[in-house]
Amino acid sequence: MTAVYSSAAPAFVAVDWGTSSFRAWLMAGDGTELAESRGGEGMLHCATSGFAPVLADHLAKLGASADVPVLICGMAGARQGWAEAPYLHTPTRLDALHAGAIRVATDGDVRILPGLAQARPDQPDVMRGEETQLLGVTEPDFSGIVCIPGTHSKWIRIDAGAVIDFATYMTGELFAVISQHSILVHAVEPGGSGAEDGGPFRAGLASILAAPTSLTSALFRLRAAQLLGFEQRSDGAARLSGLLIGAEIADARARFGAELPLRLIGAGRLGQLYREALAVTGFDVNECDAEQASRRGLIKAARQIWGARF
Amino acid sequence: MTAVYSSAAPAFVAVDWGTSSFRAWLMAGDGTELAESRGGEGMLHCATSGFAPVLADHLAKLGASADVPVLICGMAGARQGWAEAPYLHTPTRLDALHAGAIRVATDGDVRILPGLAQARPDQPDVMRGEETQLLGVTEPDFSGIVCIPGTHSKWIRIDAGAVIDFATYMTGELFAVISQHSILVHAVEPGGSGAEDGGPFRAGLASILAAPTSLTSALFRLRAAQLLGFEQRSDGAARLSGLLIGAEIADARARFGAELPLRLIGAGRLGQLYREALAVTGFDVNECDAEQASRRGLIKAARQIWGARF
Repeated sequence: MTAVYSSAAPAFVAVDWGTSSFRAWLMAGDGTELAESRGGEGMLHCATSGFAPVLADHLAKLGASADVPVLICGMAGARQGWAEAPYLHTPTRLDALHAGAIRVATDGDVRILPGLAQARPDQPDVMRGEETQLLGVTEPDFSGIVCIPGTHSKWIRIDAGAVIDFATYMTGELFAVISQHSILVHAVEPGGSGAEDGGPFRAGLASILAAPTSLTSALFRLRAAQLLGFEQRSDGAARLSGLLIGAEIADARARFGAELPLRLIGAGRLGQLYREALAVTGFDVNECDAEQASRRGLIKAARQIWGARF
Repeated sequence: MTAVYSSAAPAFVAVDWGTSSFRAWLMAGDGTELAESRGGEGMLHCATSGFAPVLADHLAKLGASADVPVLICGMAGARQGWAEAPYLHTPTRLDALHAGAIRVATDGDVRILPGLAQARPDQPDVMRGEETQLLGVTEPDFSGIVCIPGTHSKWIRIDAGAVIDFATYMTGELFAVISQHSILVHAVEPGGSGAEDGGPFRAGLASILAAPTSLTSALFRLRAAQLLGFEQRSDGAARLSGLLIGAEIADARARFGAELPLRLIGAGRLGQLYREALAVTGFDVNECDAEQASRRGLIKAARQIWGARF
């Protein structure tokens, strides 16, 4: 029995299921968001507790009926996730993502979008979740660069709607492990995000842009500058952010070029830091919200999968 | 009462007192090593247990009488150590190190050599312990570069016996925190030192030398290459070593030049890796043992301090 949906009736549930977070939206066919449910039950949590109960719980919270289809992106499709959605290999068109979706052996119509793999021995790389954001923020003929800051920042070169090259920078994770587990624990205040003070952030950025191979000595200089009284511990987090984000952008600029239009997927403090750093390095930035990008990508793919229902 | 020493009688005790290790040698005036005592009572240990009892214990093990003078280098002279031996500032002649030694308020004649500080706001840096190794391996008129690999690798430019520039790279510490606390915990086998297999080490080295700004993405590629089946986890440690040592040498080569003679202070596996990497990058390497370098530096400084007794 096929339900008939009006444009404002629930058409599907969009889910962004990451490593450590879960976000679901009940969507109408016209792209209107009807309800939202979020939690900390990411892949790592569900690997022990199971995925189906977590989804059922959130569907109930959304007030979604059992026959509303569900489209998931992110780590739930990893080998260690709910069900593996094998990577699509680059180069690949973003509007072909839906063709790689797998259907989960569970109640209802639940599908997971694939990630992307760059299976080149010289530049191996993978993503899961960001490909859906890319679909969300690009037109079918888009050519340019997209930057997605985060724990593992992604830079993606897109040519006429197809992903042709991408790279991952461990920027956010390095910030965390260096500030928590290295000698820099003495030089960076816990909880500092680096966004409070623009001066030290810009100073860190400028120093690494002037000498972009010097990261592993610049990290020690951050500590030495405090020992010698040139800098304050309260500025350490901002300076460390400047060094790591600057190292990322300096390399990405050389690899991807600064001539093409750049879309930055990110909001809040981190988005601000990247916007500022990208402007300093000559990029013309167009910013979009990360969650909105995921939702839009899921809507586009859902329309391709269940088009007749919208 | 002053004891009279023959050339083979105990003249002084040389101590290299680091962050996490203690090494002492009972030395004759002619530079002969008469006895050795070592332990894990580094600065971190002694900050709670006290320094004087640890030294007394090792002096007893060495069979040193109470009136034999003691010369210490390393972190025991840090602000958080036994007694602060303020940094000498660069540029400074190495044969002037002894003049910065401080005498500890304790029984007997116990002195600590100073570290070096580069108090330049653009290149702040510090060392404690390595300055004594530099004194040990250089002639009074030496000009060239010295590389001291380790947790915090040091590169030092020396001109006619004076330290004029130096830089610290967090190479060894980054290897530890990245392999133990980042996503690369899945890509690097515990305990791997990177020295077992030359192939992956050389591959990591070559990839970072070809793109020396790419470290933070090369780290993620190490993981991605394993996910995609291009590389084995058993090669992860060697490849990570190649990336980090390569990033250090690429930057140091640009900063210090590869034209001058280079002395490498290091032995064992780490020394081998650096010797190989330095040869690949065009350095003409002359290698010396790190402990011998410390001992020789302490002997030179001791002769300047207590010359009349030798």
